[in-house]
Amino acid sequence: MKGKISVGIIGAGRIGKIHASNIVYFIPEAKVVTVADVNMTPEIETWAKGLGIAQVTKNPDEIFADPEISVVLICSSTDTHADLIIKAAKAKKNIFCEKPVDLTVKKVVAALKAVKESGVKVQVGFNRRFDHNFARVHDLVKSGTIGDPQIIKITSRDPAPPPISYVAVSGGLFLDMMIHDFDMARFQAGSEVVEVYAKGACLVDPAIGKAGDVDTAIVTLTFANGALGTIDNSRKAVYGYDQRVEVFGSKGAAAAENDAPSTVKLSSEAGVCSDKPLHFFLERYKDAYINEVRAFFDAIAHDKEVQVSGEDGLRNLIVGLAAKKSLAEGRPVKISEVPLE
Amino acid sequence: MKGKISVGIIGAGRIGKIHASNIVYFIPEAKVVTVADVNMTPEIETWAKGLGIAQVTKNPDEIFADPEISVVLICSSTDTHADLIIKAAKAKKNIFCEKPVDLTVKKVVAALKAVKESGVKVQVGFNRRFDHNFARVHDLVKSGTIGDPQIIKITSRDPAPPPISYVAVSGGLFLDMMIHDFDMARFQAGSEVVEVYAKGACLVDPAIGKAGDVDTAIVTLTFANGALGTIDNSRKAVYGYDQRVEVFGSKGAAAAENDAPSTVKLSSEAGVCSDKPLHFFLERYKDAYINEVRAFFDAIAHDKEVQVSGEDGLRNLIVGLAAKKSLAEGRPVKISEVPLE
Amino acid sequence: MKGKISVGIIGAGRIGKIHASNIVYFIPEAKVVTVADVNMTPEIETWAKGLGIAQVTKNPDEIFADPEISVVLICSSTDTHADLIIKAAKAKKNIFCEKPVDLTVKKVVAALKAVKESGVKVQVGFNRRFDHNFARVHDLVKSGTIGDPQIIKITSRDPAPPPISYVAVSGGLFLDMMIHDFDMARFQAGSEVVEVYAKGACLVDPAIGKAGDVDTAIVTLTFANGALGTIDNSRKAVYGYDQRVEVFGSKGAAAAENDAPSTVKLSSEAGVCSDKPLHFFLERYKDAYINEVRAFFDAIAHDKEVQVSGEDGLRNLIVGLAAKKSLAEGRPVKISEVPLE
Amino acid sequence: MKGKISVGIIGAGRIGKIHASNIVYFIPEAKVVTVADVNMTPEIETWAKGLGIAQVTKNPDEIFADPEISVVLICSSTDTHADLIIKAAKAKKNIFCEKPVDLTVKKVVAALKAVKESGVKVQVGFNRRFDHNFARVHDLVKSGTIGDPQIIKITSRDPAPPPISYVAVSGGLFLDMMIHDFDMARFQAGSEVVEVYAKGACLVDPAIGKAGDVDTAIVTLTFANGALGTIDNSRKAVYGYDQRVEVFGSKGAAAAENDAPSTVKLSSEAGVCSDKPLHFFLERYKDAYINEVRAFFDAIAHDKEVQVSGEDGLRNLIVGLAAKKSLAEGRPVKISEVPLE
Repeated sequence: MKGKISVGIIGAGRIGKIHASNIVYFIPEAKVVTVADVNMTPEIETWAKGLGIAQVTKNPDEIFADPEISVVLICSSTDTHADLIIKAAKAKKNIFCEKPVDLTVKKVVAALKAVKESGVKVQVGFNRRFDHNFARVHDLVKSGTIGDPQIIKITSRDPAPPPISYVAVSGGLFLDMMIHDFDMARFQAGSEVVEVYAKGACLVDPAIGKAGDVDTAIVTLTFANGALGTIDNSRKAVYGYDQRVEVFGSKGAAAAENDAPSTVKLSSEAGVCSDKPLHFFLERYKDAYINEVRAFFDAIAHDKEVQVSGEDGLRNLIVGLAAKKSLAEGRPVKISEVPLE
Repeated sequence: MKGKISVGIIGAGRIGKIHASNIVYFIPEAKVVTVADVNMTPEIETWAKGLGIAQVTKNPDEIFADPEISVVLICSSTDTHADLIIKAAKAKKNIFCEKPVDLTVKKVVAALKAVKESGVKVQVGFNRRFDHNFARVHDLVKSGTIGDPQIIKITSRDPAPPPISYVAVSGGLFLDMMIHDFDMARFQAGSEVVEVYAKGACLVDPAIGKAGDVDTAIVTLTFANGALGTIDNSRKAVYGYDQRVEVFGSKGAAAAENDAPSTVKLSSEAGVCSDKPLHFFLERYKDAYINEVRAFFDAIAHDKEVQVSGEDGLRNLIVGLAAKKSLAEGRPVKISEVPLE
Repeated sequence: MKGKISVGIIGAGRIGKIHASNIVYFIPEAKVVTVADVNMTPEIETWAKGLGIAQVTKNPDEIFADPEISVVLICSSTDTHADLIIKAAKAKKNIFCEKPVDLTVKKVVAALKAVKESGVKVQVGFNRRFDHNFARVHDLVKSGTIGDPQIIKITSRDPAPPPISYVAVSGGLFLDMMIHDFDMARFQAGSEVVEVYAKGACLVDPAIGKAGDVDTAIVTLTFANGALGTIDNSRKAVYGYDQRVEVFGSKGAAAAENDAPSTVKLSSEAGVCSDKPLHFFLERYKDAYINEVRAFFDAIAHDKEVQVSGEDGLRNLIVGLAAKKSLAEGRPVKISEVPLE
Repeated sequence: MKGKISVGIIGAGRIGKIHASNIVYFIPEAKVVTVADVNMTPEIETWAKGLGIAQVTKNPDEIFADPEISVVLICSSTDTHADLIIKAAKAKKNIFCEKPVDLTVKKVVAALKAVKESGVKVQVGFNRRFDHNFARVHDLVKSGTIGDPQIIKITSRDPAPPPISYVAVSGGLFLDMMIHDFDMARFQAGSEVVEVYAKGACLVDPAIGKAGDVDTAIVTLTFANGALGTIDNSRKAVYGYDQRVEVFGSKGAAAAENDAPSTVKLSSEAGVCSDKPLHFFLERYKDAYINEVRAFFDAIAHDKEVQVSGEDGLRNLIVGLAAKKSLAEGRPVKISEVPLE
């Protein structure tokens, strides 16, 4: 098919597969030509063929070496992101990289440096900015409808904790979970975080504590524009995925409630009950995943700014590291205290 | 206490007691001086004393004969209303009469004739017009906010059926229950009913059918201004008292939801649940009962039109009789088909 | 592609295009091979090519003659449906036909006869049964959660009236609009309609009245199982597409509210406001259209009963004709009064 | 009237008048016999007479000296509370004291010591515990329905800032406004606060900053039982009084939304809008004020524990002082750091 943007996808795990099928079904101007996975399996091959993806490989370099391919999606494990970004940048491929870019500021800075030198575009996978509810809140803030933002309130709770094995390598709650909320807070406040105070506890599962992490946390943010923020996280909400954002300002407040599978209310002797929130991120952010890749390809097609930059990825990481430092030292931490290398 | 409006109450049943204590607590310009009940009991005497009511009697005529008393509340059994109105009118007492005025058009017409001749005020106890939710809907209609009313939708369901003994004498669902909805429909439409079609069924309790009544009904109304209405009634909603009104017009719709004891939402594995509606009319219309007597005394004190006239009582009865006729004959019935005597 | 169900689509208007792209994107086991439209245009050809549909034609017979094709979607104008069903049935193609099958009972009966003789499957396009909200209500009814259905309440209002030209040929409000609600009522009640009373008015646009139709209507339904129903329709709700269903039963009530673009609440000096309902059927039933074709192909693949049969199409039409007769004669009409030819 | 509890009220300002009329109208077992106000005015005298209160005086000592009076309500200015409590205790009067008891720990401790020695009851006016919504949340927590409390979230925003003159003497946002939320947090958590971190800003009115206070604040609480809390306050929410509480636990979450004047939803081209929250505390806590005095007299009549003790008043003050210290020093502060004298 002439004129289509040829795409290579690195990493065929859950999120890699989501992006691949979203591109196949919803991005007519793009075409996935190669999928690379260091652990290529017959299952992945069958899946790729089913989507009409011509080539599969164990070696990402085949993607970088393919002159037809102009866009790379990096969906492999976090520890590989930075190096793959550098390779992709050198190969002049536009990049969509899953979050986090890396768990160390140093490697993220190095990756962004390579991106800057090559002039390619890079978008980081903070998908929640593309959620219909949070985008609507953002519109109301940006349009000035609620006036100057004064308080940003974010509640983010998972239906169940990840495996302990994951907690051990993920960088912990602040870097694998709340980092999404840091991005959301910056997105909604329209301002950068300058100070963080984090309070955490292990109330869900002692094993998480043994792994050196917390499973419940409340963080207070201070923004450059003077606004304040509060984020609460829990690894386990028995009623499902709880994702709410509220921005309070001088002219009003905009609050996004959860999405549910239906609007049906059941009235009975037991009370008036409605559905639990959509179970988890795959259901809640189904459309957001489509919207983020659509926005990415739109930015490429029309040479526009991406909506979530590598810089955003870096800043979110720094806020997360400041939160970890705050928790460890039991005091508010200035963003400027986080070393850039 | 000088200058207070002296009040006599006839009938010390549930509703009579509610009005009495509401006047004592919330109508500082009025004073209940006598309570009459043909079945005077020690219990009533104690209750009256507790409220600081000086006199109790078995004989309503003592109230009519008392020159100090200028206002009478008629809260006795329905079959006594018309005659008591006539006596009160002749004694030049302003009258608050519980609904229905009577189950026959002839007696209501006679009572209203006596009222007209004596020039006293009479307000009929259609309390729902004074409910905060329905009054708010009415304001939105009257102010033109929703444009010309086109569809009036009323849902009215009781938590449990009345005793069969009551059904046998009440005039049935259309005259003891839906008559409130006919008044609400006329109130919200701002226009008179010209045609009624009633469909009924006995789905709750066969004994109600045996008593010659229905326990479930849907009525279609046609108004003089062209608007249409639909009312659904059930004698038994297991989740409690269901009282909703919606007015749809050319510029929008105003819909009143039920009231609940609290706004609390409980999110658990079972779903997201909130309270059932307030259980029954005593809870739901607690403030409406206060507001209606306040409005009545305000109309007297400032010589204003009452908000629910005897004429309203007559028209509501006629709509109810038309509904009974429609159900009996299985066809839409014009209001003009109901004989005025 | 081997093993895929080959599909021919007749009629490339709005709804034909929706089904085509839904099959291409969401029904991997099916493949659209031919699109026929008597008014084939370059625009349609480009669209078809864009979707990877190999053949386009002006002549539906090419589809019936194609031995590869085993499934036909009939999305052409209503007056052609019955004949095309007969042709498709004779050609042994399974059939998905848009609603209504026809505006006359006689032609629908003839079409269903042909279908029966050939033994092919036919599903009629009453898409709302596949809406997430209404399906949830249905689950609660079918599971017995709300007990025996007693009152079915349906509100269905369009954001704006169709062109007068359409009203003139559509069969009118009861056959082009409320017929969806008749299907929904039968679906939710789990019982057949036995009597209909229709009241209509022309309150939105006098031109609709001139065209011999009404634009506002309230219909009372009586079901074989004793339940009662009320449906209200308006051609114009300024706040958007209003699609609500409530089923009240002996153990509770299930009520589906409208869907909105977001859950965001904006609190300001003006009040607490949220989004209007999704604008119209394309937005509200986007997923329902996908679900209905998925269910259709699933029924074919696994030789199951279709979820909306030709019989349903016939019964909905008969209820619609009974409603028209009721409006014309100003009386309740028994379903049995509608002649079967 | 024999057998009634005779009550003296000190301070006939807004809150004193509310308590007086609530006792007159809603506490039949009590009788207000004297009202004292150092600034007695004809207006107060008229008001008292209207309520049937026999005596008015400028001198509170007349109340302490009256052997008939067994209950005193202290509704005068904060700086007089402690001394009046001591006098009342010595005079063996049961005491209801408005919050805060005092702005210094030392004087509160002294007052509570006098109370303990005399053995009278004292209830402090933290009225929000008696709000129907927050009481319902508390029931769900106490009954174990939501499991172990893990996160307590409180939003408390006023419709408009108080006069600067008030801010200057009130002790500031943490002692005049958020102290209610500290009480609510302790009430809902069922545990004492052990650490406080406060972040504040002046975003509403610079004059408040000049007066040495903040008008916007977010506080993080740590409870003895391990739960965490977050409270956000603003002196100005343009949409009205915003009073919400959420308790998240191991088995679910209970969240109280705001109360509004009606449940009516207006759907128009502008959106779907409902009423703003009840404007301010007089409207929102109307019933809570009645409930708290009812509970107080009930505790006296049946010699039960009061529901908000002097100890609660002391602990709330200490949390507030810890919050002020935290804000001043920019670090989390342990409750144990607040000196008890």
